[in-house]
Amino acid sequence: MALEIPEVVINRLPIYARALAALAEQGETVVSSQALGQALDVTPAQIRKDLSYFGRFGKQGRGYNVPGLLTRLREILGLDRQWHVCVVGVGRLGQAIVEYGGFGPQGFQIVAAFDADPAMVGRRVGGITVRAATELDGFLHNNRVDIGVVAVPAAVAQQVVDQLVKAGIRAILNYAPMTPHVPRDISIRHIDPVIAMQSMTFYIKLAEGGGK
Amino acid sequence: MALEIPEVVINRLPIYARALAALAEQGETVVSSQALGQALDVTPAQIRKDLSYFGRFGKQGRGYNVPGLLTRLREILGLDRQWHVCVVGVGRLGQAIVEYGGFGPQGFQIVAAFDADPAMVGRRVGGITVRAATELDGFLHNNRVDIGVVAVPAAVAQQVVDQLVKAGIRAILNYAPMTPHVPRDISIRHIDPVIAMQSMTFYIKLAEGGGK
Repeated sequence: MALEIPEVVINRLPIYARALAALAEQGETVVSSQALGQALDVTPAQIRKDLSYFGRFGKQGRGYNVPGLLTRLREILGLDRQWHVCVVGVGRLGQAIVEYGGFGPQGFQIVAAFDADPAMVGRRVGGITVRAATELDGFLHNNRVDIGVVAVPAAVAQQVVDQLVKAGIRAILNYAPMTPHVPRDISIRHIDPVIAMQSMTFYIKLAEGGGK
Repeated sequence: MALEIPEVVINRLPIYARALAALAEQGETVVSSQALGQALDVTPAQIRKDLSYFGRFGKQGRGYNVPGLLTRLREILGLDRQWHVCVVGVGRLGQAIVEYGGFGPQGFQIVAAFDADPAMVGRRVGGITVRAATELDGFLHNNRVDIGVVAVPAAVAQQVVDQLVKAGIRAILNYAPMTPHVPRDISIRHIDPVIAMQSMTFYIKLAEGGGK
């Protein structure tokens, strides 16, 4: 059943959860789909439709119970447990990722980091000792890792992704500036600020050209 | 006319351009929508439909001319010129952004960086001298800046976004872990690795639960 839920819906749920968490922190106990939509620039109808995939939340005209909906969304998304993350590639970008303080509090624990450069191996980054890339397979065989973060150069990213998938990793966060292939049953998300900028320049040009 | 092109189509064009650039580098001169689709895990029909918004490319059964289509896509997206970027927030994340070597070669030049912390102001980061946050308005008034990168804490992100929009910035790349409001005619993209991970754990859970 769950596989019939469109991926775009699943992708919006963490945004809803984050907004609900912010409301909960402010002590709010009830929120309407109007108010939640307004906070997120999403239509109330969209929110109601997205949530309807997972059952009935809130009562007509009464709004959603903030802590209740938040708890349910966290359960649905699996945010109520700890996930193990490994980072492959500890160059400048990989270091920033490993040192980033935002993953741990959200339940994403970086348990290992790997680099092919012997000069990096053994160094401490963000409280973790960098391992040799040659240890990756063995580590994944002996330890539970849920998500692989790929922060290697584009030229070797496909190879690293293949290695992660072969070792049983089902979710990949790709920072390499290319589009790796993954089998259909593997989740992959891309973090690429250049592509994001390139998708906006079209609109800047359009506005400049008076094409509005 | 151009405003009728769905945003999801515009968002895919940089991916096509990147793949075509890689093909061009390999000396390829012709590519079929099948081959391009395969490289990007997109259906050939999707590619043909996306490109059809911008005119006729390629001939039935002959494939696309790689350098020709690349040049056209770069024109459409405005990748054939230099864009000026400012970064607001030069904490750990902002520093990594300013020092990231991937923007310049793609035509995105970081022309200024701002921070509210007096200890950061005047420091050199990635070849740029960090300016005081109080200088932001004046700088935007006197210099052309096309894209604002927001790398401040969530609590002050909306305020910074408002300031950028008020100063005439039309495109914002948001790294803060919240969803700022922008007027309809402003482009905004979000870079959030935690949200990306949270949209994948649903699928890991699903696979574990045998729900496939």
